[in-house]
Amino acid sequence: MFIDVLGSVAGLLTTISFVPQAYQTLKTRETHSISLPMYIIFTSGVFCWMIYGFALNAWPIVAANVVTFILSASILVMKIRYG
Amino acid sequence: MFIDVLGSVAGLLTTISFVPQAYQTLKTRETHSISLPMYIIFTSGVFCWMIYGFALNAWPIVAANVVTFILSASILVMKIRYG
Repeated sequence: MFIDVLGSVAGLLTTISFVPQAYQTLKTRETHSISLPMYIIFTSGVFCWMIYGFALNAWPIVAANVVTFILSASILVMKIRYG
Repeated sequence: MFIDVLGSVAGLLTTISFVPQAYQTLKTRETHSISLPMYIIFTSGVFCWMIYGFALNAWPIVAANVVTFILSASILVMKIRYG
């Protein structure tokens, strides 16, 4: 039981953590100190986690990574746009 | 077999993705557009993943998250220091 709760908390935190970054970037349009390679690699990795979750029918992994993918992809698009 | 490889690639990408951000931040000392709440929440989440991996004796989860923890914690410290 404790382990399941810990895994859910870990997944929730690492997923929602991108909300403040996406919000700040959307509001300020300032992306200078954000690393473009980081978001290219990270967004690709999260995409792989999504496919992995689908392949295993592990819906918690799919759900968490769909949200993270949308957030990190939006930060990536803003980084490309605002430089 | 394919699924295991996909999971390993996903884990590798989401782990190493923080290397370019840590390197850029270390080099430029510029953190203005990086979100402090993001790195506080993300680093806490990765710490939970580490404990989760220990609790399950799942060494790939421990190894990936120890590396991610060191990288995201260093970005967090630099964000706090350089503002």
